[in-house]
Amino acid sequence: ESESAKKIEEEVGRVVEQAKELQDSAASFISKASADDQSLRNRVVSLDSSIRRLHSLLSHNNHNLLDPKLADKLEEDLQRARCIMVDGDAASFLPPKTQGGFLKMFLGPINVRASQKDIQLKVKEEYNSYRDRTALLFLFFPAALLILRSWIWDGCLPAFPVQLYEAWLLFLYTGLALRENILRVNGSDIRPWWIYHHYCAMGMALVSLTWEIKGQPNCTQKQRGVQLFLQWAMMQGVAMLLQNRYQRQRLYTRIALGKAKRMDVVWGETAGVDGQLWLLCPILFILQGFEAYVGLLLLKTAFIGVVSEWQVFFCGILLVLMAVGNFANTVQTLMAKSRF
Amino acid sequence: ESESAKKIEEEVGRVVEQAKELQDSAASFISKASADDQSLRNRVVSLDSSIRRLHSLLSHNNHNLLDPKLADKLEEDLQRARCIMVDGDAASFLPPKTQGGFLKMFLGPINVRASQKDIQLKVKEEYNSYRDRTALLFLFFPAALLILRSWIWDGCLPAFPVQLYEAWLLFLYTGLALRENILRVNGSDIRPWWIYHHYCAMGMALVSLTWEIKGQPNCTQKQRGVQLFLQWAMMQGVAMLLQNRYQRQRLYTRIALGKAKRMDVVWGETAGVDGQLWLLCPILFILQGFEAYVGLLLLKTAFIGVVSEWQVFFCGILLVLMAVGNFANTVQTLMAKSRF
Ligand SMILES: CC(C)(COP(=O)(O)OP(=O)(O)OC[C@H]1O[C@@H](n2cnc3c(N)ncnc32)[C@H](O)[C@@H]1OP(=O)(O)O)[C@@H](O)C(=O)NCCC(=O)NCCS
Ligand SMILES: CC(C)(COP(=O)(O)OP(=O)(O)OC[C@H]1O[C@@H](n2cnc3c(N)ncnc32)[C@H](O)[C@@H]1OP(=O)(O)O)[C@@H](O)C(=O)NCCC(=O)NCCS
Repeated sequence: ESESAKKIEEEVGRVVEQAKELQDSAASFISKASADDQSLRNRVVSLDSSIRRLHSLLSHNNHNLLDPKLADKLEEDLQRARCIMVDGDAASFLPPKTQGGFLKMFLGPINVRASQKDIQLKVKEEYNSYRDRTALLFLFFPAALLILRSWIWDGCLPAFPVQLYEAWLLFLYTGLALRENILRVNGSDIRPWWIYHHYCAMGMALVSLTWEIKGQPNCTQKQRGVQLFLQWAMMQGVAMLLQNRYQRQRLYTRIALGKAKRMDVVWGETAGVDGQLWLLCPILFILQGFEAYVGLLLLKTAFIGVVSEWQVFFCGILLVLMAVGNFANTVQTLMAKSRF
Repeated sequence: ESESAKKIEEEVGRVVEQAKELQDSAASFISKASADDQSLRNRVVSLDSSIRRLHSLLSHNNHNLLDPKLADKLEEDLQRARCIMVDGDAASFLPPKTQGGFLKMFLGPINVRASQKDIQLKVKEEYNSYRDRTALLFLFFPAALLILRSWIWDGCLPAFPVQLYEAWLLFLYTGLALRENILRVNGSDIRPWWIYHHYCAMGMALVSLTWEIKGQPNCTQKQRGVQLFLQWAMMQGVAMLLQNRYQRQRLYTRIALGKAKRMDVVWGETAGVDGQLWLLCPILFILQGFEAYVGLLLLKTAFIGVVSEWQVFFCGILLVLMAVGNFANTVQTLMAKSRF
């Protein structure tokens, strides 16, 4: 018996020893790794600035210092160097993009940058599949409300399901805005507008929650605003579904070819997906026109005075703003792409 | 001229070379670091299980295998080993707590665990200062509404400022819930209830947004629910301020003594802060009682039928639930602390 006591005592001693050793190994690993990490960071920064300097030198080749053909070749070499740095393992050591105020507001000073490329891709894929799941609901939920309205509810939407839907919208847009900010920190080139667009949509969902849903009599007239809002939401669902299809394919093509966005600049966009964009955009333009139309109708409703709440006015203005912004940014995207 | 062209060409060549080298160094650093990282992780896991095994062996020392005094000493040694592991540098290699569904829903699969101890502390401090800032507003905002109501608005709250306040509440509670989930992932021992409590508060803020704020005539009666809600919110502000004072002091004491939570088990809570807790708790109990009272008043209002909206009923039930949960969890915290 005393022997097994001895054994336990020994084991405890060993455990304490191991804990100390582990602490030492961990400390030395951390300090070694952070030194290496810092040196890689420095090298990335200095290489990046060399590339920038040479790039500006080449593009200001106005005195024809270099043979234009040679200049083109050198420019291409520089691009290759940039691709190696930005898309390879060195990318983890690039200085992080600053996290915007939106993330700070909700999450505090936590860092949401994934250090590994494969996790960054996973985040992007998960974002796409999240959008897919929601796009279907986006279509289904308001459609169900509008159908039930004319079939069962006698032209008069009850408040509760509409409010439930609006709360869901608010939750959804908040999630999208957070995720897009996270993607941005992780190196996505998403235009800031698409994120602002979701802030606007958040504002709209929030305001629509406070929007009183009046009942009989004269339901159809009083609920005109809500009805337009639901129609806009359905249209958003269609836009999202189309956009998702295109963007997922684009991501997969990129992954399959083992080259990421910046390589596009060198080799051009993959033709197949590019073609889709020219199909997608006219539909997007139509939807954006409809968005503006719904916004103007809301404004009209507010001015004529059938529904004179400030909420209707506010949503109308927001919708018009969003339509204009979406249009401008889609056009700019197209122009940027056709330049290559 | 041709000489400087040569120089540029050379430089570009060097940059491409450097990019390749950098890629190689980065790749080898990453693979080396992840191997070391994995081996440290394995060691931490195995040490952790040894400690657990020995701990259960010692605490089941029912055959008096060991002299009780020796058993106590060994138990203390084990605790020391545990502290070294959990509070030292090895802590970064402990298996991460799983991230809850709430974070996943809003943020996707991104990892919010800070790998460095000092960043974890920073996150915690920022959380405290966020709470401080909001607690003041918490007190000020509803107080202003209630004062303006009797002085200027003639006993009748206008809808807009109240809704603005409710939207702010929703935003605030969402932020708190997200931050607390992040703290949890970063090793905080926060009881799950305090997080659920903020989910409930989010639900309440959301529901209160849909709650129609009726005007004259008979304002005082119709707005009884809103008024109670504002009173509860003010009370929350008081609770938060007191709690913040206590918890910040607790954190600073811990940091100053250079020992983190788990060490408490060995050395006991710091007496100064512990004393504060016994002062704080009676006040918290009174506030919790008031919370339940407001909830019951809301339920009464809903049943008597002065304000018969489901929102009033829902908020009443939530408030009573929250009061009961807060009380139970405060008592459990006190009991857990007095056991040492
Ligand atoms: C025009 C459009 C199809 C272009 O998509 P694209 O070819 O991916 O555009 P870009 O090449 O500029 O994309 C750059 C990045 O932004 C992302 N992105 C582009 N538009 C986005 C959007 N609307 N939402 C979220 N992310 C978007 C891309 O995924 C890409 O990310 P990555 O750098 O991580 O790979 C797309 O912006 C779009 O669908 N816009 C219209 C949206 C709209 O108007 N909706 C409402 C209709 S009422
Ligand atoms: C009772 C109370 C003072 C105990 O606080 P405490 O001594 O810090 O409690 P614990 O030791 O159990 O804390 C463990 C962890 O949970 C955190 N925590 C405890 N209560 C918390 C709360 N209500 N909100 C957020 N975090 C909390 C602590 O900061 C600590 O974090 P750490 O592990 O990162 O250091 C605190 O829980 C409290 O104020 N509760 C009452 C809240 C309430 O009822 N409010 C509404 C009134 S109507």
